[in-house]
Amino acid sequence: MLTRIDHVGIACRDLDAATAFYEATFGLAVVSRDTNSEQGVREAMLVVADAPAGTSYVQLLEPLGPDTPVGRFIARRGECVHHVGYGVTDIEAAMAAIGATGVRLLDSRPRHGSMGASIAFLHPADVGGVLTELVESAVRSAAS
Amino acid sequence: MLTRIDHVGIACRDLDAATAFYEATFGLAVVSRDTNSEQGVREAMLVVADAPAGTSYVQLLEPLGPDTPVGRFIARRGECVHHVGYGVTDIEAAMAAIGATGVRLLDSRPRHGSMGASIAFLHPADVGGVLTELVESAVRSAAS
Repeated sequence: MLTRIDHVGIACRDLDAATAFYEATFGLAVVSRDTNSEQGVREAMLVVADAPAGTSYVQLLEPLGPDTPVGRFIARRGECVHHVGYGVTDIEAAMAAIGATGVRLLDSRPRHGSMGASIAFLHPADVGGVLTELVESAVRSAAS
Repeated sequence: MLTRIDHVGIACRDLDAATAFYEATFGLAVVSRDTNSEQGVREAMLVVADAPAGTSYVQLLEPLGPDTPVGRFIARRGECVHHVGYGVTDIEAAMAAIGATGVRLLDSRPRHGSMGASIAFLHPADVGGVLTELVESAVRSAAS
């Protein structure tokens, strides 16, 4: 069902500094920057690998303010991994299959994620404390 | 420098329950189980993808006791993502290049990781709060 680790979402206080760090230290390249008012974040996507099964990214997330999900997350836990996103080929099928196991979905239908992807989040309390995201990337959708 | 997201390391209180959950919910398959007394953990590696650039895994980690790194981590933060491991083709070269940028290495030389890999950890305080691991897998070493 899961085709890859699509991305690791990392909460940071200063997106520009964090992006510069990942570029300089690990040689990663930014392929997308975005502000998502709905989710209350500024974000950058950096490519880790570009394999046939699909690209993997580091997603850096800066909260737009303290009273946002990522802002509250940083206040509680500090800067660290915020969520893990796994690639799926058919997000609606994956949501149905996972929901049928009893895991709660935070999204009742797919919504728009980074770079045109369709995404849905699973409740972290039902996934061993890990906020887990399903990602059907736009590229794969167009190809299928 | 980084070839892929090799694995996401997830701290859990009950390895057997967590493993059964990832198998049943996401269809992942366990390819390795190990007890690492040096690191104070029992662990399971579950395959997420098997692409030409190298396999990606979910690594589930149960502390052998409360006075271990993962035991203290869970006491402080609860069950959540413990670290991120990135694939590299040459771990000594990667350690040298990253060390030269000023990031502290927790290991002065590569040590043995899961499934025969050579690994090294970077200090989380120097990587935006994220415990970061470099992984040169045994399979890739043999091929190179």
